[in-house]
Amino acid sequence: MTDEPRQLHLNAFLMNTGHHEASWRLPESDPYSSTSIRHYTRLAQIAERGRLDSIFFADSPTLWGTIGRRPSGSLEPTVVLAAIAAQTERIGLIATASTTYNEPYNLARRFASVDHLSGGRAGWNIVTTATLDAARNFNLDELPSHASRYARAEEFLQVAKKLWDSWDDAAVLADKESGLWGDDRLLYPAGHEGEHFQVAGALNVPRSPQGHPLLVQAGSSEDGKAFAANHAEAIFTAQQTLAEAQAFYADIKRRAKAAGRDPDAVLVLPGIVPVLGATEAEARELEAELDRLIVPQYALNNLAKQLKLDPSELDLDRELPEHLPTEDEIEGAKSRFTLIVDLARRERLTVRRLIGRLGGGRGHRTFTGTPEQVADAIFEWFDGDGNGLAADGFNIMPAVLPSGLEAFVDQVVPILQDKGRFRTEYAGSTLREHYGLARPENPRRREALEAAVKGVLAHSR
Amino acid sequence: MTDEPRQLHLNAFLMNTGHHEASWRLPESDPYSSTSIRHYTRLAQIAERGRLDSIFFADSPTLWGTIGRRPSGSLEPTVVLAAIAAQTERIGLIATASTTYNEPYNLARRFASVDHLSGGRAGWNIVTTATLDAARNFNLDELPSHASRYARAEEFLQVAKKLWDSWDDAAVLADKESGLWGDDRLLYPAGHEGEHFQVAGALNVPRSPQGHPLLVQAGSSEDGKAFAANHAEAIFTAQQTLAEAQAFYADIKRRAKAAGRDPDAVLVLPGIVPVLGATEAEARELEAELDRLIVPQYALNNLAKQLKLDPSELDLDRELPEHLPTEDEIEGAKSRFTLIVDLARRERLTVRRLIGRLGGGRGHRTFTGTPEQVADAIFEWFDGDGNGLAADGFNIMPAVLPSGLEAFVDQVVPILQDKGRFRTEYAGSTLREHYGLARPENPRRREALEAAVKGVLAHSR
Repeated sequence: MTDEPRQLHLNAFLMNTGHHEASWRLPESDPYSSTSIRHYTRLAQIAERGRLDSIFFADSPTLWGTIGRRPSGSLEPTVVLAAIAAQTERIGLIATASTTYNEPYNLARRFASVDHLSGGRAGWNIVTTATLDAARNFNLDELPSHASRYARAEEFLQVAKKLWDSWDDAAVLADKESGLWGDDRLLYPAGHEGEHFQVAGALNVPRSPQGHPLLVQAGSSEDGKAFAANHAEAIFTAQQTLAEAQAFYADIKRRAKAAGRDPDAVLVLPGIVPVLGATEAEARELEAELDRLIVPQYALNNLAKQLKLDPSELDLDRELPEHLPTEDEIEGAKSRFTLIVDLARRERLTVRRLIGRLGGGRGHRTFTGTPEQVADAIFEWFDGDGNGLAADGFNIMPAVLPSGLEAFVDQVVPILQDKGRFRTEYAGSTLREHYGLARPENPRRREALEAAVKGVLAHSR
Repeated sequence: MTDEPRQLHLNAFLMNTGHHEASWRLPESDPYSSTSIRHYTRLAQIAERGRLDSIFFADSPTLWGTIGRRPSGSLEPTVVLAAIAAQTERIGLIATASTTYNEPYNLARRFASVDHLSGGRAGWNIVTTATLDAARNFNLDELPSHASRYARAEEFLQVAKKLWDSWDDAAVLADKESGLWGDDRLLYPAGHEGEHFQVAGALNVPRSPQGHPLLVQAGSSEDGKAFAANHAEAIFTAQQTLAEAQAFYADIKRRAKAAGRDPDAVLVLPGIVPVLGATEAEARELEAELDRLIVPQYALNNLAKQLKLDPSELDLDRELPEHLPTEDEIEGAKSRFTLIVDLARRERLTVRRLIGRLGGGRGHRTFTGTPEQVADAIFEWFDGDGNGLAADGFNIMPAVLPSGLEAFVDQVVPILQDKGRFRTEYAGSTLREHYGLARPENPRRREALEAAVKGVLAHSR
């Protein structure tokens, strides 16, 4: 241990022209950015210039709602990461993929492949995909229940880990002289027979630089937190207040410990939507401009959908209705539902003001101010207030892209660096190294060695 | 029409250190190339320097055989294409993917994404994956029958095309002023309910630069040829003799015509494995060196597997046994089976010599000689001998990579160019343009317009 103060970890969450739903209407924005690899490569390069740990893409295998009011559709994120990997050197590369609508062999291989081609920079944000629209693109009439999606996810991860560990790190010999390329004894076929999956073979990719991609998770429901405690190494979460974030942080660390894991190896990264200006007034002006560009009826319809209400039940100038569904009745994004309702009730927001808050960050903490104020907001949660920590770092969700990321990297990051709380150069080359996480050992190798030792012992008796 | 002579189309089939199974043992070869994106990017850049139409990766979602004797495992090819796209400008990018072990929504989206990020250079080699090992990685105990795989493939293509056409080319308005980003009326959800698939929605990617990726096919069984006639725009095929290639070529063109398609829009590209030397003696020396590096017993085991025999039934110094399974008994690669048996019988090869021939090109035509001789071999098939054409171009499968591709590009391509039969610069920017194929119209748009016209007519009555 050195006396170096605890270090921040920063992820840039990239989404076309920015996280504010009206950002595409700003004069500076490219409304075709969602299909532009140049746009995303440029964003990754900005994040890398700022020495951020990683970039991240959300995803769902469905066209979300209608295309009328905001940029819709997006390139499949694992191929986007691969293209970005070719144009960057160090930045970590995290993509969302669904355990409900993929097969483990294909997905484990794709992430192992991105890990190879990026030199160990791949991360997987594991989701179970909570929309009926997605189910209907994959041969189903109904959304599988929350519990059944998480049961499949749990087994999916077991299989994926078996596949990533199916080649010993020493399996490739590449011995030209003897003509022996690999050692078949150091292959550990998955041999998985479970409730959801039957996967016999070894992966068709050697073990990757990181062993496993970094495993990320973002669900905050009970099932989600239980899953995170078992598997996640970084957790993206939407928290509105310091107290809530502290409670979430403590809960995750406690659960990780209960699952037999090192709580320091499970990083909690709350989202923050910074709206930056050289002065507070300038920042407020940008925020107001963005909110003016929201089309209220469209946002109201989306809100109604998330709350399982008919749009006619919502009035722009009144608070949410008294009677709402309970979280139990929501089969989709349970924690998002609760977060929206809590925010509206706590601050007694009209639907119009609620829409403004959600339009800015979809329930994530928004913070409008100068670079110094944003840095202070980061430290407030990072260092806590004596009632415990609230974050190991942050998921940075610029309201406008690329300008909001540029402002963060050029104006906020130097403050964090000056205070000695954020790297000025990358120390390692892999995503795990950036997050201070170890490369996983291969348990299959240990099992194989133990079996071999037992055989020798039995033989020598 | 101009008087320009008929133009060759050339694809480079890339496979780690080359198509000769012992190529990895040469001093010049990188035995870790199968996981090296630098290696593949360099190969793509060499192919682009030669103005080739495209590069291509074979694939199967399984670890093929053992890893003992040759480089095994490979990065998932769609992510490899994405990484290569970022480092190239014009070369077409073709990857294999299986209709048996993917879902249409995911795969259609991934190819549309690669098409977007490459500026219209994506191609999909459609396979049904003919190995039991693959089935056992995807929850199955047995290989689905040839017929059932092709039935699924047929419906998979229907769904994929509906998804690629689910956005009108004019659907994105990006009108910042009104806040209208897209026109929902110009979305055409798949609405597919079939025997294998139920896919309701529109794709979550706008229609891509090529409309559809270039569709490639390589199966030569009856089912395979019927499928190719319906869907394929380029066909990779293994043909050993001019007469066989002519027959195959005529058959494909006839089938395409019978399916109501323009036969000129279905390009036939036989494989050729060039082994090049400055003199014929040098080329023969390279060929002999490669064959010396084959480990015979390993190759014999592989051959036995392909012929559905026990290895003990094969003798290195004798011909194949009299009694062999028939093609009907092979549920896997039927046409490959027949090609091997025909080659062995026709040339009365011992197992050892058969292994040498297959080790060089796995049943594809091998040609050893000077650049001039290779160019002549290309023209012999491209122009035919008066009994009809045999090729619209070639699938170039260098025995050794990168040196064999460099030799082809630097020594053979200039000969083809000097004779006015191959481009000296790319005329277009998309893969379809390289192959002289049109961007597909969107039939959904026509249907929608017809429906609208009917509505207007009904209303005006």
